[in-house]
Amino acid sequence: MNHTAINSCTTTPRFSSKAIGLELTPLQRALAAASGPNVLSLAMGLPDASLLPRAALAKAAGRVLNSDPSVLQYTLPCSYLKEQICKHMSDRGVDCTSDSIFLTHGAQQGISLLATLFLDTGSDILEETLSYPGYQHLVDAFRPNVFSVPTNANSGVDVDAVEKTLVSGSRPALMYVMPTAHNPLGVTLSHEKRCHLAHLAKKFQVPIIEDDPYGLLSYDSEPMPALRSLEETWIYYVGSFSKILGPSCRIGWIVAPKEHIQIVSVLKEGSDLNVSTLSQWIVSDFLRNEDLSAHVSTLREAYEKRRNAMNTALSREMPANVTWQVPTSGVFFWIDLPEHVDASDLLLRCINDEKVAFLPAEAFSRGKRKNGMRLNFSRYEADHIADGVARIGKGLRKVLH
Amino acid sequence: MNHTAINSCTTTPRFSSKAIGLELTPLQRALAAASGPNVLSLAMGLPDASLLPRAALAKAAGRVLNSDPSVLQYTLPCSYLKEQICKHMSDRGVDCTSDSIFLTHGAQQGISLLATLFLDTGSDILEETLSYPGYQHLVDAFRPNVFSVPTNANSGVDVDAVEKTLVSGSRPALMYVMPTAHNPLGVTLSHEKRCHLAHLAKKFQVPIIEDDPYGLLSYDSEPMPALRSLEETWIYYVGSFSKILGPSCRIGWIVAPKEHIQIVSVLKEGSDLNVSTLSQWIVSDFLRNEDLSAHVSTLREAYEKRRNAMNTALSREMPANVTWQVPTSGVFFWIDLPEHVDASDLLLRCINDEKVAFLPAEAFSRGKRKNGMRLNFSRYEADHIADGVARIGKGLRKVLH
Repeated sequence: MNHTAINSCTTTPRFSSKAIGLELTPLQRALAAASGPNVLSLAMGLPDASLLPRAALAKAAGRVLNSDPSVLQYTLPCSYLKEQICKHMSDRGVDCTSDSIFLTHGAQQGISLLATLFLDTGSDILEETLSYPGYQHLVDAFRPNVFSVPTNANSGVDVDAVEKTLVSGSRPALMYVMPTAHNPLGVTLSHEKRCHLAHLAKKFQVPIIEDDPYGLLSYDSEPMPALRSLEETWIYYVGSFSKILGPSCRIGWIVAPKEHIQIVSVLKEGSDLNVSTLSQWIVSDFLRNEDLSAHVSTLREAYEKRRNAMNTALSREMPANVTWQVPTSGVFFWIDLPEHVDASDLLLRCINDEKVAFLPAEAFSRGKRKNGMRLNFSRYEADHIADGVARIGKGLRKVLH
Repeated sequence: MNHTAINSCTTTPRFSSKAIGLELTPLQRALAAASGPNVLSLAMGLPDASLLPRAALAKAAGRVLNSDPSVLQYTLPCSYLKEQICKHMSDRGVDCTSDSIFLTHGAQQGISLLATLFLDTGSDILEETLSYPGYQHLVDAFRPNVFSVPTNANSGVDVDAVEKTLVSGSRPALMYVMPTAHNPLGVTLSHEKRCHLAHLAKKFQVPIIEDDPYGLLSYDSEPMPALRSLEETWIYYVGSFSKILGPSCRIGWIVAPKEHIQIVSVLKEGSDLNVSTLSQWIVSDFLRNEDLSAHVSTLREAYEKRRNAMNTALSREMPANVTWQVPTSGVFFWIDLPEHVDASDLLLRCINDEKVAFLPAEAFSRGKRKNGMRLNFSRYEADHIADGVARIGKGLRKVLH
């Protein structure tokens, strides 16, 4: 018997290159830190669970669990749900049919499946200098070659810089954007910039993933139509009911050219077979029997008040050399801090001394930017928001002086 | 402006090498074919939805949706559920603690995450000549170098062949097995073979994924303890409530060394953030308030009758040169057909002429084997099973004569 190849020192399995050295993601670390006792957390992008339509969903669950036994079975994707999502998409300015809708286990799975659809190991990708860490984390597994374009809380992604990158010859395998209610910046891209970006996607043949979890949470103005409404072939839209009906529903969707839905379905099959029939049917039943628009209006009204409360608190509590924009949609304020302030250090002090948490710039910038922070205004009521901002102001003043 | 790099002929995005040429999986094709009008399908491994504890789950859903608003929120994995899974694992002979349990969106996600943990593109893998296509499909994305070892419905995987492969110097990045209620063969591996296999995993340092969705569905004898009960470092166990409480619950789990759970959690985060809180809490509530063992006994009793009914029908309907073993666990019979019979051709005839479906050997053998078929006996009652087997017998006799 040949034992020479056995290394008796190795006592645990070899992991893949994707898995070796994987550490907790910024979001996981923040969730852990912010979940300490008595910490008021403005860190996560959570809806206020008490505003979600729990009673209506309980009724829906009762109805679907007391009707057809197939509610507990594997089933084909629910047609009625896909039709309702098409209607919902028309509120986002998108004209589509059921056969271009693919149901996912939340928006994150939609982004993950699309990344797998487009990316090989080492593919070029185009992204903003500040972006959603859940996206960055998942594309990092492909060890991509990242081209960055500037972005800011005032006007969003620099589309001229996108054009310059593409004109210079780059052909990224994908670009990821959040044109509405950007995470972390809170900014919503202008119609003009949307047209320009959609034009570039088509002209230079770059598929764009449009992540739109907060698309319906618009406050001051009419919601800006989705980027997908401007270009059907090159914009892959990702939506979700997580912020509207609750993350627990785990119902998200992709809008894609219908000829690509089958490929995505094969990728999904390998990943986790299918979206829970129970979840699909509960959400379907809710959409059939309840008034989604009225519920969204309730959320908008509540969150607009909280946004205003946060703005008032920021105006009162922040030092003069700290700036922010008031977001017209979504659930986040982005705070630009003086250049020498490291928000990650500030966060540790704030958690320890002031018992308050936020997410620092580092979490959104692949570690490159320090002087900024994201504050969530959806999870808590106005008085908690004011309290939280006051605590952060206190911590910040200690650092500045 | 430099337009030279733009290929104006390309009108759709470039896909990744993983996605290019992806076709519907055998299971997806079978599901589509078998879902035709009036087709009696013995193809899929479905539980009988009418035997699942729907009323109890409805009560559980009502309770959790009418209590804590967090039921709709993102939450940390439910500790109570993990503790209950540990108890459940003791029924499989496995002694483990909550910190070695990782919750997944069904067993498929468990296998998928473990494959990502161990496999790089082109990794060596060790598998049986007949295996679960959902596993084959997902590892195919890694374009693995596949080493096959024989297996059969009488005694299961040839562990001596596994040893021979390892002794000859192969060091696969993983091996995938279903020691209990093998899919498609229905066979349960003997204690002696389990000990040998666990010994080989440790000795040759090969991580083994033990897929055990049917572990509790044992009929004639005491359930065989899981492979994981024999070796803690090298056996990664994947379990699920899909066959017991319903696929719709989408609650599966991995049992792994606790120091590896964090890495798996990071992979999961990128894939779809978290397991639905609602699903976790419904299952938790069920386990708290209902008698899981009594429910499992009900399932066992019902499925044992159906297994016996299928055996009787096979004895009556199958030609003399067709053989099978009576499975002691799980939900499948494997039928060995004469060498010249192509079960995929037979399936098409059976669907068209006899309105009955099964899964052909090709679906489980990476297309290499033709003369076998898998029949499910859990989904339908005895008279439907008898009818289905009679129809298959009729189709088969037409092919043989």
